Amino acid sequence: MAKRLKFWGWGYEDDVVPDSEIRWMESTWAARFGVQGFDVTPTPKAEEISLPAPRVTPPASLASLCTTDHYERVLHSYSKSFPDIIRVYRRECPAPADVVALPRTEQDVIDLLDWCYRANAAVIPFGGGSSVVGGVAPPAEGSHSAAVSIDLRHLGRVLEIDAVSQSARIQAGTFGPSLEAQLKGAGLTLRHFPQSFKCSTLGGWIATRAGGHFATLYTHIDDLVESLRVVTPSGVLETRRLPGSGAGPSPDRLFIGSEGTLGIITEAWMRLRRRPTFRATASVRFADFYRGVDAVRALSQSGLYPTNCRILDAEEAQYNGLADGRFSVLVVGFESADHPVDAALKRALELCADHGGEAEASAGDDSHLEGAAGRWRERFMFLPFFKEHMAARCIFRDAYETAITWERFKDFHASIRDAGLNALRKATGRPGSVTCRFTHVYPDGPAPYLTFHGLSSSPERLMQDYWTVKSAASDAIIAGGGSITHHHAVGREHRRWYDRQRPELFARALRSAKQALDPKWLLNPGLLVDPETA
Amino acid sequence: MAKRLKFWGWGYEDDVVPDSEIRWMESTWAARFGVQGFDVTPTPKAEEISLPAPRVTPPASLASLCTTDHYERVLHSYSKSFPDIIRVYRRECPAPADVVALPRTEQDVIDLLDWCYRANAAVIPFGGGSSVVGGVAPPAEGSHSAAVSIDLRHLGRVLEIDAVSQSARIQAGTFGPSLEAQLKGAGLTLRHFPQSFKCSTLGGWIATRAGGHFATLYTHIDDLVESLRVVTPSGVLETRRLPGSGAGPSPDRLFIGSEGTLGIITEAWMRLRRRPTFRATASVRFADFYRGVDAVRALSQSGLYPTNCRILDAEEAQYNGLADGRFSVLVVGFESADHPVDAALKRALELCADHGGEAEASAGDDSHLEGAAGRWRERFMFLPFFKEHMAARCIFRDAYETAITWERFKDFHASIRDAGLNALRKATGRPGSVTCRFTHVYPDGPAPYLTFHGLSSSPERLMQDYWTVKSAASDAIIAGGGSITHHHAVGREHRRWYDRQRPELFARALRSAKQALDPKWLLNPGLLVDPETA
Repeated sequence: MAKRLKFWGWGYEDDVVPDSEIRWMESTWAARFGVQGFDVTPTPKAEEISLPAPRVTPPASLASLCTTDHYERVLHSYSKSFPDIIRVYRRECPAPADVVALPRTEQDVIDLLDWCYRANAAVIPFGGGSSVVGGVAPPAEGSHSAAVSIDLRHLGRVLEIDAVSQSARIQAGTFGPSLEAQLKGAGLTLRHFPQSFKCSTLGGWIATRAGGHFATLYTHIDDLVESLRVVTPSGVLETRRLPGSGAGPSPDRLFIGSEGTLGIITEAWMRLRRRPTFRATASVRFADFYRGVDAVRALSQSGLYPTNCRILDAEEAQYNGLADGRFSVLVVGFESADHPVDAALKRALELCADHGGEAEASAGDDSHLEGAAGRWRERFMFLPFFKEHMAARCIFRDAYETAITWERFKDFHASIRDAGLNALRKATGRPGSVTCRFTHVYPDGPAPYLTFHGLSSSPERLMQDYWTVKSAASDAIIAGGGSITHHHAVGREHRRWYDRQRPELFARALRSAKQALDPKWLLNPGLLVDPETA
Repeated sequence: MAKRLKFWGWGYEDDVVPDSEIRWMESTWAARFGVQGFDVTPTPKAEEISLPAPRVTPPASLASLCTTDHYERVLHSYSKSFPDIIRVYRRECPAPADVVALPRTEQDVIDLLDWCYRANAAVIPFGGGSSVVGGVAPPAEGSHSAAVSIDLRHLGRVLEIDAVSQSARIQAGTFGPSLEAQLKGAGLTLRHFPQSFKCSTLGGWIATRAGGHFATLYTHIDDLVESLRVVTPSGVLETRRLPGSGAGPSPDRLFIGSEGTLGIITEAWMRLRRRPTFRATASVRFADFYRGVDAVRALSQSGLYPTNCRILDAEEAQYNGLADGRFSVLVVGFESADHPVDAALKRALELCADHGGEAEASAGDDSHLEGAAGRWRERFMFLPFFKEHMAARCIFRDAYETAITWERFKDFHASIRDAGLNALRKATGRPGSVTCRFTHVYPDGPAPYLTFHGLSSSPERLMQDYWTVKSAASDAIIAGGGSITHHHAVGREHRRWYDRQRPELFARALRSAKQALDPKWLLNPGLLVDPETA
């Protein structure tokens, strides 16, 4: 029997954070917030979440693909956003999934969509459910009669590998580890490693424009998509496998980032590469964060295109075990399947030195597993698992990931940070923490990722405090010219800021495109755009 | 007084092909087609083209922005496609522009669009007029009352340079040379050098997804666009300056490649770079074209990302003065503003040697002006000027530029080539020529560019012969899975194949988006999609 995803937090049921790590987390945050300890709300059990009876029943022909199993319904009623985790810990389920459908073929997806259209049921496409922005939680409001979560977990195969063109046709429900395992025999890799890698799927990555492993060049999944197949209420669409095209606006780019509102992606031809055999990585210390930022800018404009180029401010570097709190740390690395990359690292370190950066260690082939870079990587993959344990302790945490051009960065960063720190103090009555790193960088600007931590005085305050801080920071992002998301997607929770970011005429075009493909507006209602009458 | 663009061919009136080059062209093709010489249709004069009286009169408030000058109307009644050049040489003008409007501000564009909407006049956005696919020629059919060509030549300024983020805000009517001249003082460059560079504009490049200088990575203008301003009949749209974003489907990507059907691009923030100071270039000979292709594939998948990576088959290499007809030639080069690129070239030449390639010369910093690469570059920029002289001699020429994944390339290439050679023989009664080079390459496939030459027996046959060959080759491209265009755009002349390439449901979405922005369907009627009732 396959292991189950947690409904109350990150990962699978058997992903247990060791007690020693919990103790580290508690002592770190107790010291930070100046408290003795934390009251701990117990982890919820599925049976503690009460759900109303399903409002819709699948026809007999589809019954074998559908379940109303309590655990499955609970799992599909939440995303992994912090507000959803708060709801879980409150044992509240304001917008439950009525039925969970588990198609085994593309035809099943078509048939399920037909049924939902007949039944006027909202359709929530579900991959790994790892959305941190409410992208897979059913809508609480709307004119639909019920909510059906269509979970693609059984569409999990690599169907075809073209080793010559280094591409593969892959089903949308394929999870990260399985995808890489299926490619491994061919010596190929997608190398798309979002933090959610273990519990997210190809279809989810494409629908949300996920950001991955590469800090430069191939930052988003967008560029790795060669072609798509999408099931819409109006039929099935398939784009051509083309390495490049100039034939009208890109059809793929309309569906990449459509967050399930235009159709359900069932498979894609993806661009792969050989597994890297040459690597060089180093970490570089900067006494001043903004000087480090200047170094990163120089790197991003050098044409060296580092694979890894992630600077952490002093507090975040300390939290990640990379430094003692006095220094910002840049992890910079190169990889190749074809040629040595030592000269590239050497030049990168020269650029860093020009801006006062001190290289901690330059390292050889296994450097990605050693030193600061390795420690960062280990902690990086582990951090999301703390979220539920923080919620249980009234610690709220959120990440604001955005993008901005270089010349505005310093003011932009300061304004979000100030807005966050002020809101944290105002909401909780005590100081909170706002740290910053870059996840990706471009020649014209960085993708800053700000992590906020605050401590609420009670479970009852948690949701309100969270939104007070979220709103203040998001307002600052939009006012400062940034994007409300660089790679987490819009979901339900960024929607109100997305509406301010997105040009109104583009909304009109997108609304019309959606109307043409989903005339009853049943695909992920409430995401991205609303019908004209709304 | 500004020099005038030719209405009958490529470039400006003072761009005269030297007699020696004309003699070289004539002798080359006389030998190739086995004829003694050519009858030459004289170059048309503007007064030989008769135009009906304009069907529409601008209001007094816009009169100063509009002209019905005969030369301007003739210039704006043709694109630079081969069929349009044939029409010019026949002194035929089946779909004249009634009025040419020359806005000086964005508000002028808004006002002109308002007037066209009131007058039910088709709007043809016009940059440099260099479309080789009929993209700027007014439609011959439709329900519009007249055709107004809106020429952006007076919106030709770089408005703002952000040297920190290496970006600039540039008006859409800025021509290539002027754009680079205005950036030069800041030490920055767009480095987008399509073959049309001299007589095309930023807005045209964006509207047509133009391909440029870089053979890998930044192949199309798409990736260089940071944000856009577009005037539509429903209002003005501006996207945010963002180095990267994951907030819904990209708004920019809907307008990039929209070929004037969704709005008129008035300005864009463009991503720039420093001018390169390090260069290394070589040419490599291959006895067998397909082995050369294998070498290019290895290069494209190496992660070396050469700036130049253009292989020419033996016949095309000979025609371009790069070889004697026995060898295919690959021109490969690297450039950087930051670091030496000799090691990259060395590794590239090793990959070529693995596939039987013999490097002709590796060269130093000025190599882009010397040797095979320099000769190729010189001839490359010159070739379009021959087109009118060929049309005058009943030689027809066309380029089929497409993209395909590597594993299909050999069969695909053979099928287009065979279809072309058969059609050439059938149409003209004598052999023609089909050659191939790559303009751009991707890890998953090349962008092959096939050049066709044929000789018609009379001016009366020329159009028909051209379309016989065009249709046969285009059918082969679509049947073989390619794109009907990689970077020339769809225009009027690729439309029927684009309709077969583009997924029908995407057409439906695009149609709805257009309906929302251009409810009277007056923007470039006939391009990309038609209204539902058509």
